[in-house]
Amino acid sequence: MPPPPLRPHLLLIRSQTLTPLLRRRPSCDAALRRPRQFLSARASGAQLAAMGVAATQQPELGADDAVVGFLTGRRKATEVAHAVWRSIVRKGDTVVDATCGNGNDTLALLKMVADEKGQGRVYGMDIQDSAIESTSTFLKMAVDDDHQGELVKLFPICHSRMEEIVPKDAPVRLVAFNLGYLPGGDKTLITVPKTTELALKAASRILSSGGLISVLVYIGHPGGRDELNVVESFASSLPINSWVSCKLQMVNRPIAPVLILLNKK
Amino acid sequence: MPPPPLRPHLLLIRSQTLTPLLRRRPSCDAALRRPRQFLSARASGAQLAAMGVAATQQPELGADDAVVGFLTGRRKATEVAHAVWRSIVRKGDTVVDATCGNGNDTLALLKMVADEKGQGRVYGMDIQDSAIESTSTFLKMAVDDDHQGELVKLFPICHSRMEEIVPKDAPVRLVAFNLGYLPGGDKTLITVPKTTELALKAASRILSSGGLISVLVYIGHPGGRDELNVVESFASSLPINSWVSCKLQMVNRPIAPVLILLNKK
Repeated sequence: MPPPPLRPHLLLIRSQTLTPLLRRRPSCDAALRRPRQFLSARASGAQLAAMGVAATQQPELGADDAVVGFLTGRRKATEVAHAVWRSIVRKGDTVVDATCGNGNDTLALLKMVADEKGQGRVYGMDIQDSAIESTSTFLKMAVDDDHQGELVKLFPICHSRMEEIVPKDAPVRLVAFNLGYLPGGDKTLITVPKTTELALKAASRILSSGGLISVLVYIGHPGGRDELNVVESFASSLPINSWVSCKLQMVNRPIAPVLILLNKK
Repeated sequence: MPPPPLRPHLLLIRSQTLTPLLRRRPSCDAALRRPRQFLSARASGAQLAAMGVAATQQPELGADDAVVGFLTGRRKATEVAHAVWRSIVRKGDTVVDATCGNGNDTLALLKMVADEKGQGRVYGMDIQDSAIESTSTFLKMAVDDDHQGELVKLFPICHSRMEEIVPKDAPVRLVAFNLGYLPGGDKTLITVPKTTELALKAASRILSSGGLISVLVYIGHPGGRDELNVVESFASSLPINSWVSCKLQMVNRPIAPVLILLNKK
């Protein structure tokens, strides 16, 4: 079935045509649909906890606490990532959640960019419809402000196509990846090296100077280590005059997620 | 020539006999001498800068700023290390500088442990006499308090022998390593994998619960990568129920120093 016709609010989409290369990848050929909108409905802490998400319940950590907490086993790599994002992202920024999953990162990013003028934007995507549904539901419950909710645009597409949905004139401060499978979803549906590599390249093109690509790679599942190799290879290929690429990982926990941070000078 | 007889102020030395294993390592068989004492003499910022050291001139960074600074190319790995130390070390603690070098780390550690009661201690060592001399000279210039100066005990010995100089009843909060060659010294004189491995094992034994082994590995010189392999192998061998081992490194700068942090639970 062909994708539905583009709607007026898809003016944000950069390109309405797919590149031949992308068309050859069935896994990335999900229909480009209109972004999901959601209404505001406040969730209680208990409801959010029941959804397995805790982003709004924890106090915001500085990278100080997060990094030392990570080192002392009290904090997760994802908390380090969020703390670093908070040091980079400003109110009113445009950011991309390249792998929405259940929406934890999407919400964290929304809180970082939401501003009084309504300029901040979070472009979220996930190739799995169920992930977009989860994110949308989660945001409906977690966000208590209709205007804030409208700052998030969700697309059920492969992250290698992010250039099609992020406006060309929007300098992107952050592109966040969580690579692996959808928590609570089908573990056989995973992000894969080929499209991840394309997505990283796309992210590097749309990122503005001073921006960050943040990649948290889960490697405990089959194929996870192959994907890490692709990310590390990409990170190490970035020219040192325009990029700082660094990696934070556990050494005595071989399957612990690895955090790779790429800063565009 | 046999080492000089032990002096009364060497009561701090744990053992006066070397283990047979250590005796088989000529590079670690330097004479066990009395710790160097130094008198206080304040240095100007210009004098310190002329010595190539800047530890006292920079404002103290939190791990937050240091990590983000590292990521954005504005801070060095050693600044990240110092920021993490500051989050772990408390006034009055006993700490070890396993590789004094020119004394930058020794001074930084002294500032962290120096307390009004005079309980804090820094046990510093380096197998090169010239490093101990440099550290002693630097501390004489940088420390403006005789009592503070007395909290540092310097020994010209191999770091694999640290258990011989740190009192058994002193819980050690931090053991810091800077692996490579002495900055400004003979680049052919480097720390080597075998004694580094022994030193790491010794550090893991004397470290108290909640303490940290911090290893900054310089890998740009011949033998540097072999030493990194030894450190990583040691770090990955630590049991996950009692240690958190993590690594921070640049990915697109293959010879940039690697920071390995080992927290004892």
